[in-house]
This record gives sequence, structure tokens and C-alpha cells, in this order.
Amino acid sequence: MSLLADTVAAIRPLDAAAMAAAQARHATLTKPPGSLGSLEDLGVRLAGLAGTCPPPLPQPATVAVFAGDHGVHAQGVTPWPQEVTVQMVANFLASGAVVNAFARQAGAEVVVVDVGVATPLLDSDPDGLAGGTAGADAGSAGEAVSAQPGMQPRLVRANVRRGTADLSVQPAMTRDEAVAAIEVGIRLAGDLVDGGAGCLITGDMGIGNTTPAAALIAAFTGAAAADVTGRGTGIDDETHGHKVAVVQRALALHRPDPADPVGVLAAVGGLEHAALAGFVLGGAARRVPVILDGVIADSAALAAAALAPDAVGAMVAGHRSAEPGASVALRHLGLAPLVDLGLRLGEGTGAVLAWPIVASAVRVLHDVATFDSAGVAEK
Amino acid sequence: MSLLADTVAAIRPLDAAAMAAAQARHATLTKPPGSLGSLEDLGVRLAGLAGTCPPPLPQPATVAVFAGDHGVHAQGVTPWPQEVTVQMVANFLASGAVVNAFARQAGAEVVVVDVGVATPLLDSDPDGLAGGTAGADAGSAGEAVSAQPGMQPRLVRANVRRGTADLSVQPAMTRDEAVAAIEVGIRLAGDLVDGGAGCLITGDMGIGNTTPAAALIAAFTGAAAADVTGRGTGIDDETHGHKVAVVQRALALHRPDPADPVGVLAAVGGLEHAALAGFVLGGAARRVPVILDGVIADSAALAAAALAPDAVGAMVAGHRSAEPGASVALRHLGLAPLVDLGLRLGEGTGAVLAWPIVASAVRVLHDVATFDSAGVAEK
Repeated sequence: MSLLADTVAAIRPLDAAAMAAAQARHATLTKPPGSLGSLEDLGVRLAGLAGTCPPPLPQPATVAVFAGDHGVHAQGVTPWPQEVTVQMVANFLASGAVVNAFARQAGAEVVVVDVGVATPLLDSDPDGLAGGTAGADAGSAGEAVSAQPGMQPRLVRANVRRGTADLSVQPAMTRDEAVAAIEVGIRLAGDLVDGGAGCLITGDMGIGNTTPAAALIAAFTGAAAADVTGRGTGIDDETHGHKVAVVQRALALHRPDPADPVGVLAAVGGLEHAALAGFVLGGAARRVPVILDGVIADSAALAAAALAPDAVGAMVAGHRSAEPGASVALRHLGLAPLVDLGLRLGEGTGAVLAWPIVASAVRVLHDVATFDSAGVAEK
Repeated sequence: MSLLADTVAAIRPLDAAAMAAAQARHATLTKPPGSLGSLEDLGVRLAGLAGTCPPPLPQPATVAVFAGDHGVHAQGVTPWPQEVTVQMVANFLASGAVVNAFARQAGAEVVVVDVGVATPLLDSDPDGLAGGTAGADAGSAGEAVSAQPGMQPRLVRANVRRGTADLSVQPAMTRDEAVAAIEVGIRLAGDLVDGGAGCLITGDMGIGNTTPAAALIAAFTGAAAADVTGRGTGIDDETHGHKVAVVQRALALHRPDPADPVGVLAAVGGLEHAALAGFVLGGAARRVPVILDGVIADSAALAAAALAPDAVGAMVAGHRSAEPGASVALRHLGLAPLVDLGLRLGEGTGAVLAWPIVASAVRVLHDVATFDSAGVAEK
């Protein structure tokens, strides 16, 4: 079987016994029942994911910033020049972006993955220690990438294609390319978990990438383009109307079938969206939580869930992006976001903010005394 | 002048020049303008508080858990026995409570302050290194308490009174006791800042303390008792109806005047509420951010704002407690909470969860590259 098929086959439902144990443990801890709100549900779910109570602390964590370019940029869906994608890749590697600042604060590692950047990265760009492979074979996405927090950001060279085609006039990529990009994400997830990561955090960079995200969300949820297409990095009314029309045109052209998730990704997706879907699947197969960032990750999560419905058990919605499609996607997945602060930056910023909250939810099940052990009276 | 009067006099408005500098700096950083949502406003506000841009990173942080008991417990407003307060104090000192788990995850120090516990703490209970003084003089609340994260929790003995009187039949405490409790909080804030703390986090413990919190919120905002009285740690409909009636009776009895904040605290407050008001004032006077936890801190923050309106500039709403009064209080203060996860535990838990978010908002202004410096094109 292929790596993708193997991975999908390895994804299993949450463990009901571990969840029941976590629920029972919560009731014995020195706090009023239910007083931790949704953090109690989260701890229970992560026990189910790990298959044991308490589940391991979700640390260390790595945020993987998957970068790609988009042929639909030619349609004028964004005022930002396409070269900003590769410029921001350099900025991530120089630790100059917001995701770097947030990751430094939280103690998370940053890995930047060129899965679809249009401009070839210079050989002088800092490389991952193990590097991964360049070019379309994508044989290994950064083998033996470890998850030591505080490390310098690393680059994984796994370019499947130098940007997608314009999804409003032709498929964004071939099915083989979509599978190759998914498998970049699966391999990186596996490598990170092998390196010790206890939590995976999704990040993205790609000028124009909210347009394919909107198309994916419309395709997987059945929502109208107008209801899932937002203003991305900030566009005016006219550009927004045009962007909605571009998404509508793409959907009408390809008629993507949600029962064929790889076909949907190939028709209207992006390389980073496909890689993120694989990253989620890879985390789910290894039973490690994957914190979703914003609308790009949410759209990729829909693809992952379509490929393996039980993968939703590994997903944690880090935050609610200001993009309308994010809320539509999260509702479809049945996920409630942890942070809701009007962020619309991407890069993994919202998910990195959520990571300490996820770790705190798990730590309760490790550290908190019981009424019995602490000698505290119950009501 | 008294410590309280000196402190109130030292509280100044936010620095407009530093805020303008932070706003201008945000516009140069490698991110779309406004894409960090409310975190941009928070960074700007903390620059105004510090009077410089970038403001110092708000670390290390100490969560001060002010503990007190309540005479109104006799009215049956909660099913929990009063001795749980002192039992939980022991649990905090043994690192067994949820706030300890969250603080350990975040790297914050925990200080437990006996400002009004009914049961005398045993001499064998672990004490602060510098200890503070016991009894009503409260001369120093833990002098030279430092803010080293990772330390064991410490106890500050600053008991002003062994629990309040029943506010539904008489004033909860005298004016002098209210001032003494406020000054416990002011002193501790000053000691912590002197010890290096860059951020103060409010915590509380007191069986029955949502009843005085509701009365304080009604008194300071004019809201009806029924709109600000919640279910605390979880009470049934009958007990809730009774609790609303108790709050109504207290308000009718004392007719607290919001123009006399000390009088309001004395009539319908609690010792930990008064100390928390002082803690907020102390942080504001030292221009260090104070992260508010839930409804207890929010009610105390109303008292602090009534004493010194500019103190609001130092307040950060850590989270939205599930208690209805919390939202009423935050609206009155004009504060939007950072975390909203249905927590209703108190102890400082919601505020500790918010602290890494506050630090991240500030770190952006320190670490993120500008478009110019990173060579990233603008739209």
C-alpha cells in the first residue's frame, strides 16, 4: 500500500476506556465538577487519543509552517505580490516573523517546509540538519527532524511543484502531486514524533492561499462561496467580490466531489493545504494531538477528515480565525476553538498561542490532588 | 498620607506617546496591518502602561491567591463547608490545586495570602521566606517576596480578620479592616515588583465568595442582583434563588454608595476582594500589568477603578468566567477577556492561562522584523 493508504488505515477511533478513566479522574480532583469548562472535555479527548489516562503531556511541540504559491494569484485575489511567500520563508528562517516570536515565548520549535514555493530557495538558505530532499520526489521530509524547543528554525526542502496552476481555469495540480504533497506532511509528522514531539502545530505561508482554502471549505461542507470567502490579509470590497466570483468559477468548473478528497485537493487546493492534510493524518496515525491554526489548516483538516473520519479525534482547534470559512469548517468538524482574538495572520500564530492551554488541560490530569489525598471536604 | 491614598495618587493615565509609538511600530512589522486582532491593542496598551515602546516583557509572573472566609456562608449560599477554604490553602501550599498545575506549566510563581481565613493556619504550614506579619496590623505582606518561577508556593500570613461578618445582616467588616485588607494587596504587589515580577496575576480562594462578588458588582455597576448572581461552584435552582435573595437583602440593608468604594467593600465585600482591589492598585501604581482572573477579581477591579479610574489601564481581563457577574463587570470596565472557555474555578486559573498570551502580545513588539529589515515587499 501507499504511505497515504497505510496512514489512513492506521487511524483509529478514540479509546473509550481511557476517556472514561479521564472523566472519572476529573470527578476526584480538588475542584468543583465541571469547573474547568471545555478544558475538561479536552483532557478527556486527549486521553482517548493517547489510549491512556493521564495522556502524556503534549510537549515538546513543533510548529510546521508549510509554504506554497498559488497560480490563482494571477486573478488578482490579493494585493500582495507573490514573492512575499519566499521572502517570508526567509523571514521565518531568520526568526523574524510573528510565529517565531510566539514560538519563542511558548518554547516551541519552528520548522519551515517548502512544499510548493514558486521561487527556488537559495542553497545558502539555512537548511535542516537532516535537510529532507529537494524536488518532486519528496522522498523524505526532513528525516530525523527532532523537536528540541529553543532551536533555530529549520528548513525542510520538499518542493513538490513550484506553485499550483490557476485553479479558476484548470486543476491546481495533478492527483499525483496532491498525493506527494500529502505524503510530505505525513512524513514530517512521523519524523517529528520519532524525534520526540508530543504535539504538532500547523502553520502555513502562501500569498493567495485563502482562495483555495475557501474553495476547499465550500467543496467539503457544501457552503456557498460567499459564506466562506473572506478578506484574507485585508482586501477591499471590490477585490473581495472578485475573490468570491473566482471561487464560484472554480467550483463550477471542477465540480469537486467531497467523496474524492484527493481529487478535491488536486482541483481547488494548494500544496500547503495538501501537506497540512497529510500532517494532520500523520499526527492522528501516531495518536499525537495536532493543533489547527486558522482557515488554511481548517480547510486542510476537512480534507483529512474526509480521508479518515477518525482523524478528527487528533485535532484541536487552536483558534477561531477572523476568516468566515474558518468558523464554517470548525462547525463541520464539530470543533470549538480555544482562542478567539480576531487573529487573521496564519503562519501558525493562533495555534501556538493555544498550545500552553492544551498542555494545561492535560497537566491537570497529572498534577492535581484528589479530594481524598489532599484532605479536602466535598460538598 | 496613608499607603492607600499614596497609591491612588501615584496612578497615572496611560502614556499617549508610547501608545502612538507602539501603534506606529505595529504598522512596520512583517504582518498585514491589524492581523493580530485584539493582541495589537493589548500591546499598544501595555506600551502606554510602561510608558515606553516596546514595553518590557511581562515576566516573570506571580499569581497571588488571596484567601478569605465569609460570614454569609451561614445563609446557606453554597453547599461546600467553610473549612474547605483552609483545606484548599493547604492544597495550594502542597502544589496540589489546579492553579498550581497551570502555574507550573506556564512557569509562574504561586503565593498564597491568608488575608481573611477563618481557621488559624498552623505554624507548621510552610511559610514565606520573609513571611510577612500575622494579625490585623498587616505591617508587611511578605516583604522581599521574589518572583522566581519554579519555586515552591509560599504563604504570606497577613490575616486582617478571621472571616467577614454576615453581610446580609451587618457590615462584612469595618472600614479600617477594609483599608487594612486593601493595603495587604498593595504591599504584596509592591514587594513582588521589587522582587522582579513583570506581571501580577490575581487569584482567590474563599468558600462563599461569589456572594460578596455579586453584591459588589451590583453596587458598582447598578445591575440587578439577579443579573450578576451566578451558580458559583455549582448550585441548584433553589439555592440559586436563595442566593439572589441574600444579595438583594444585603443591598437593601446597606444601600452601598459606589462613590465610597471603601464603604462598599466594608459593607458587602470580602477580605480577599478588598486585598485584590489593593493588589490591582499596587500593580497600577507600579505600572505593571495585572491579569484579572474571574468574577472575584472582576468585582475587586470595580472597587479599584472606583478608587482610581486610571487603574483600568493596568488591568488585563484574563478570561471570561462563566459567572454572569463577570461579564457585567468586564463590560463596565471596558475590558475584553483573552480566554473564554467556560471556566468557573477561580484560584487564578483563567488568568494564568492568559499570561502567555499577554507575553506573546508584547514579544511581537520586541522580536518581529520590519518589512524593511526583512526585505519583505508590501502590498
